[in-house]
Amino acid sequence: MIKIIAKNFVKQGKVEQVLVLAKELVQETLKENGCISYGMYQSESDENVLTMIEQWENKDVLKAHMASEHFKRIVPLMNEFMDKKAEMDIYKKVI
Amino acid sequence: MIKIIAKNFVKQGKVEQVLVLAKELVQETLKENGCISYGMYQSESDENVLTMIEQWENKDVLKAHMASEHFKRIVPLMNEFMDKKAEMDIYKKVI
Repeated sequence: MIKIIAKNFVKQGKVEQVLVLAKELVQETLKENGCISYGMYQSESDENVLTMIEQWENKDVLKAHMASEHFKRIVPLMNEFMDKKAEMDIYKKVI
Repeated sequence: MIKIIAKNFVKQGKVEQVLVLAKELVQETLKENGCISYGMYQSESDENVLTMIEQWENKDVLKAHMASEHFKRIVPLMNEFMDKKAEMDIYKKVI
């Protein structure tokens, strides 16, 4: 099992646009094989921080996700509304 | 429901010491009222990044956690092995 934390930094005033796009991405992704959980979270201290917290069975299904039609179509659209590059960490559970 | 991502930056060569301490913290915390999930994860790109990914029913149980005997005893011990202040984000689910 692997966990992904993808921390996005949204341009001021563009959160709604990102949420609209992310909604479709989440809906489509949750249907994918090997997707354990996949949701978007908003930071309490900074409303412009929208973080995708994901859980996948293994690296292969994650790769398939990143090659999917909806990922390749929607993520670039979301990136238009970002202030800077996302901080993405891939994690494995240790405790 | 709230989600916490607490990203820790461990001093080189001190990961094992942190894991020993974190093990007890995780065991005790999982017994706490309102704790939905609580686990430590290691970054694949940097073994010195150990992140606690937590899920709590609400702010009150999180406050009780941070006032608990095991939290107040163990976290300062863990901090001895850290390179810099942890990055902590409190999140609410939006999608």
